[in-house]
Amino acid sequence: MIKVGIVGGTGYTGVELLRILALHPEVQLTAITSRKEDGVKVADMYPSLRGKVDLAFSAPDKANLTECDVVFFATPHGVAMAQAQELLAAGVKVIDLAADFRLKDVAQFEKWYGIPHTCHDVLAEAVYGLPELNRAAIRNARVIGNPGCYPTTMQIGYAPLLRAGLIEADSLIADCKSGVSGAGRKAEIGILFSEASDTMKAYGVSAHRHTPETVEQLQKLTSEPVSLQFTPHLIPMIRGMHSTLYARLKTDISNEALQQLFEDAYKDEEFIDVMPFGSHPETRSVRASNMLRLALHRPGNGKNVIVLVVQDNLVKGASGQAVQCMNLMFGLPEQTGLQHVPVLP
Amino acid sequence: MIKVGIVGGTGYTGVELLRILALHPEVQLTAITSRKEDGVKVADMYPSLRGKVDLAFSAPDKANLTECDVVFFATPHGVAMAQAQELLAAGVKVIDLAADFRLKDVAQFEKWYGIPHTCHDVLAEAVYGLPELNRAAIRNARVIGNPGCYPTTMQIGYAPLLRAGLIEADSLIADCKSGVSGAGRKAEIGILFSEASDTMKAYGVSAHRHTPETVEQLQKLTSEPVSLQFTPHLIPMIRGMHSTLYARLKTDISNEALQQLFEDAYKDEEFIDVMPFGSHPETRSVRASNMLRLALHRPGNGKNVIVLVVQDNLVKGASGQAVQCMNLMFGLPEQTGLQHVPVLP
Amino acid sequence: MIKVGIVGGTGYTGVELLRILALHPEVQLTAITSRKEDGVKVADMYPSLRGKVDLAFSAPDKANLTECDVVFFATPHGVAMAQAQELLAAGVKVIDLAADFRLKDVAQFEKWYGIPHTCHDVLAEAVYGLPELNRAAIRNARVIGNPGCYPTTMQIGYAPLLRAGLIEADSLIADCKSGVSGAGRKAEIGILFSEASDTMKAYGVSAHRHTPETVEQLQKLTSEPVSLQFTPHLIPMIRGMHSTLYARLKTDISNEALQQLFEDAYKDEEFIDVMPFGSHPETRSVRASNMLRLALHRPGNGKNVIVLVVQDNLVKGASGQAVQCMNLMFGLPEQTGLQHVPVLP
Amino acid sequence: MIKVGIVGGTGYTGVELLRILALHPEVQLTAITSRKEDGVKVADMYPSLRGKVDLAFSAPDKANLTECDVVFFATPHGVAMAQAQELLAAGVKVIDLAADFRLKDVAQFEKWYGIPHTCHDVLAEAVYGLPELNRAAIRNARVIGNPGCYPTTMQIGYAPLLRAGLIEADSLIADCKSGVSGAGRKAEIGILFSEASDTMKAYGVSAHRHTPETVEQLQKLTSEPVSLQFTPHLIPMIRGMHSTLYARLKTDISNEALQQLFEDAYKDEEFIDVMPFGSHPETRSVRASNMLRLALHRPGNGKNVIVLVVQDNLVKGASGQAVQCMNLMFGLPEQTGLQHVPVLP
Repeated sequence: MIKVGIVGGTGYTGVELLRILALHPEVQLTAITSRKEDGVKVADMYPSLRGKVDLAFSAPDKANLTECDVVFFATPHGVAMAQAQELLAAGVKVIDLAADFRLKDVAQFEKWYGIPHTCHDVLAEAVYGLPELNRAAIRNARVIGNPGCYPTTMQIGYAPLLRAGLIEADSLIADCKSGVSGAGRKAEIGILFSEASDTMKAYGVSAHRHTPETVEQLQKLTSEPVSLQFTPHLIPMIRGMHSTLYARLKTDISNEALQQLFEDAYKDEEFIDVMPFGSHPETRSVRASNMLRLALHRPGNGKNVIVLVVQDNLVKGASGQAVQCMNLMFGLPEQTGLQHVPVLP
Repeated sequence: MIKVGIVGGTGYTGVELLRILALHPEVQLTAITSRKEDGVKVADMYPSLRGKVDLAFSAPDKANLTECDVVFFATPHGVAMAQAQELLAAGVKVIDLAADFRLKDVAQFEKWYGIPHTCHDVLAEAVYGLPELNRAAIRNARVIGNPGCYPTTMQIGYAPLLRAGLIEADSLIADCKSGVSGAGRKAEIGILFSEASDTMKAYGVSAHRHTPETVEQLQKLTSEPVSLQFTPHLIPMIRGMHSTLYARLKTDISNEALQQLFEDAYKDEEFIDVMPFGSHPETRSVRASNMLRLALHRPGNGKNVIVLVVQDNLVKGASGQAVQCMNLMFGLPEQTGLQHVPVLP
Repeated sequence: MIKVGIVGGTGYTGVELLRILALHPEVQLTAITSRKEDGVKVADMYPSLRGKVDLAFSAPDKANLTECDVVFFATPHGVAMAQAQELLAAGVKVIDLAADFRLKDVAQFEKWYGIPHTCHDVLAEAVYGLPELNRAAIRNARVIGNPGCYPTTMQIGYAPLLRAGLIEADSLIADCKSGVSGAGRKAEIGILFSEASDTMKAYGVSAHRHTPETVEQLQKLTSEPVSLQFTPHLIPMIRGMHSTLYARLKTDISNEALQQLFEDAYKDEEFIDVMPFGSHPETRSVRASNMLRLALHRPGNGKNVIVLVVQDNLVKGASGQAVQCMNLMFGLPEQTGLQHVPVLP
Repeated sequence: MIKVGIVGGTGYTGVELLRILALHPEVQLTAITSRKEDGVKVADMYPSLRGKVDLAFSAPDKANLTECDVVFFATPHGVAMAQAQELLAAGVKVIDLAADFRLKDVAQFEKWYGIPHTCHDVLAEAVYGLPELNRAAIRNARVIGNPGCYPTTMQIGYAPLLRAGLIEADSLIADCKSGVSGAGRKAEIGILFSEASDTMKAYGVSAHRHTPETVEQLQKLTSEPVSLQFTPHLIPMIRGMHSTLYARLKTDISNEALQQLFEDAYKDEEFIDVMPFGSHPETRSVRASNMLRLALHRPGNGKNVIVLVVQDNLVKGASGQAVQCMNLMFGLPEQTGLQHVPVLP
């Protein structure tokens, strides 16, 4: 059994890790920390876990994280980098669901996250945790920077096109929509029910942290300079992410060949579903599961190719993907503990 | 492996059966019928099942239901009674999620459902499928009338009080609230998104079919005549049911003794969670799971006892309960295939 | 023109006052205070008011509230009582939307609100602002305690029955449901979109502040001792309140006579709509309007009479009712500025 | 008083016309037709109109529409073209909220709407009812083709840029999101609450009727060939539309000049609100009002300009705009009866 610790288990990615790991057949939940909730039973905060998780939160200094095999950080940016070195030294693997180990470019990190990066060595060895594009490295990693939710959809959607050199890399437009849980479990006016339901808006249109992360990764797939317009929107649903990805074809190609390109790219992937050409995936078709579904469109057989991508932002966009990485790191079948059927309706 | 057939798999209880049974370790999905969708793959109608369920719908006459071990009817009222006899004759067990085998009183059935009951023999042997109150009979049943969603909450909530003779049986008030999926997957104006969201209402206040079903069952628990005021409401949420049950105490009793009464009554139940006295259970704490949670209140230590009950109307209120019955009927551990952690948030 | 000041205009009752008063033909918005938002234009905080309200928030000490004709307090409990005396001395009328002037019984106030009442003189002269039951006194009032949202529905629904002596006053059960805006515009986890949507729960079941307020008022209508079980629930909708009121008839009466009783009671009321017997009012039928609609039920012609009451908690349940009081206090037609057609869908 | 008739008043644009016109000071509601609801009082179908609208529906043949001054068609495509000629002959003006008089190109109409156009003469004189771009013609029109909801946002957002020749007209991308009421009040599975809430999807990505309408209008503003990728999405909110419009600048221009261009273009418009550069308008900021708000973005001061546009799809996107046209056609101040403050929260 893999002994698992979770730092910062009170937020949505934390409780989602618990939901998944509680039934993971190879995992023993060993420690979960929260400074504020020290001593509180996890199931008292989240009654959905009554009878499923017996752990109590413990203050970070009391938790014996170094006795775990792997520790997930479901924390604000900056926490994992402060503790990673000690854990690694003790032989504990680290999976950070925040941004500390996502961006290799330290200057970019510091610009976008507004804090100094204090852990360059670990960053240097950290592996970007997107299994479908980076599986081999993840298998051998000691520390994982788990991708952002939006970047996952953009990379999975653009990767086959960029690798094949089919699209103009410098004019990508990603119009993305997220459920409100993506904003986290924070006491903020803007995400109150009465503020965020029956309405929608764009946010961060002029600049958003997920742009540099995505560009850094997409750039690995092509020698042409990548330029990306990423536009996030907040949608009145709890979970779910829908990315509408636009690209311009450089060369003519049949729709059948386009479809084949994606089917080939993801034919062995357990968690990527290439739907029939012209489909319209719904976010609920992946609700509470680690699936990502996508479909291709080519209006008027013209120069625009559109990739529609849906995922559950808390699963494939966060905690499910982190568990997928853990499975790889510990030599388990990748889908272990992740075979939920999406909840519909 | 139990070979399972589903009649009428296009509605919400049907797709919920599929969600549960797709991962049930002892079940082989064998046939699913739909006159209208004959030949259509289930996963084409419900993309959430892509990669999980390979079956296609077949017309009722083509489906070899008699080769199944058990057939679930997720159909409108009146369908199961027309087919049950033939299936039973072929050694197939029957679980009806509609009302055909719920009410023993034929006159009541015909009054409330407006159709003649054409299958008195089967009705006579049918067992009411509420395991927590009727487990022994279910184990030996060939045919099950699966309880209505509202009646499940009312019976679980009132049973300990009635059996103990603590409350006035003739003045029960059950103020119940249901998510919209309880109304089914029917093309009706009243349950359109634009009609049913950001609003609520009561319905069927003067008379509702679930009253006679509930009274018939509650009456088994007490010799005093039961009278129940049941008031259903439609709430803008997909799944979830919240019943607020009022009763007047006949005798004085401490709150501790009240709580103990419920804890004792359900101490061996896998799917009933008696929460601490004075709790306020949320419907999301059971979302997409077979759990039912309840909590007791006694304002001002007065004569009113209030039981708050929540369940997922599609799981414990329908398809999960049906699978729970199936497990009992086939000698499996009752929780087999039903151990989902509720989805929160 | 009536010069109007608003203290604490950043919450939902504040912005709702602004929505109504911006088009009120006899009102000049003169001052609006907020310590935190001093200098910020109201329309910058609430873009819905761009082009409609030009005012900026000013710090309380800078606002010339004494130059107003009337000041509304859309503040937390305790604020109005600290400022009322000074305003009254300056000839300014006061309408408090919080609880400072609702409960005549100071001990009850201090018990339920947990703060000392520091303004007994003003409390003594304050008038309870429910026009349909208290119109004459409101006309002559200098200071109004505007009713709570729940109490408004309970009083309007029970009043005709109690006054006629038709029901057992000591066994009232009010099962009430509120939209989330009733919880205010506060940065609290429990009312986040991801916590409060697609779910529901009861709260404050064992004890709630609106019980003593309602009982104090209902007691004025009958010589029998009133006992009320009030059970509030939180519903995933922005606005709207639905109260399901149960009472037991003491004497036999025809349904026609019951209906007539209510129609007579409210026949001259602009904002009370007695719907046909047996109707099921929806909350959206009054959305964004000052209407309250109700309908009577009598299941099985039995002893229980049920009154279904709906209102918009922010309008008839708060700001609209406050403006209705203002109209009375200034001799205007009661419906001035309050004739909105409900927004449906 | 203008005598107004409404054909097909049972859908959402019909009831929204009623909501607006019930308080319009210059209008007398004279007739409203519905074959199915003949004799039913409008307020019985829509209780929100109780006390506000006294009319009953009448069958089309019984309604004396020719005695009206203007008739609105809130009907499916094809109805207005069958009746327009007779009404015009009787001196009645016609405003069609469907598509019969939107597209001047008959072949395009017949291709996209799948019915023959039987009324070429009226089509020839019909005026496209977007006041901000076509005011003079509307003033003198006898028959109006009221714009589609999506096209309104796209035209208002792109018009200043196209007229100034600042953007590449052949590479417009409009990623648009609509509330569910845009799909109408039809008994269809796909727009049930349980299908359309807590989820989202794109639809009609490969081809949608609003593309040719929008292109036909945009082409009037530039001599360069317009090419538009329009991608609609269905969002779980009742009302509201958010269009995210992308364009590539042909020439360098400062952000200040861009902003000035829009402020100048719409400075006299009562219903267009150009928000500060870099704002993120929310759909709720225009809920239930005829306002359209927009804001400009220019990420990284690069080649992409983004216009965010919000409107209420049922008001500025349909019925409000139709009333705005009526006001112009009858010489009234354009904002008459349309000065609602948006409902927030």
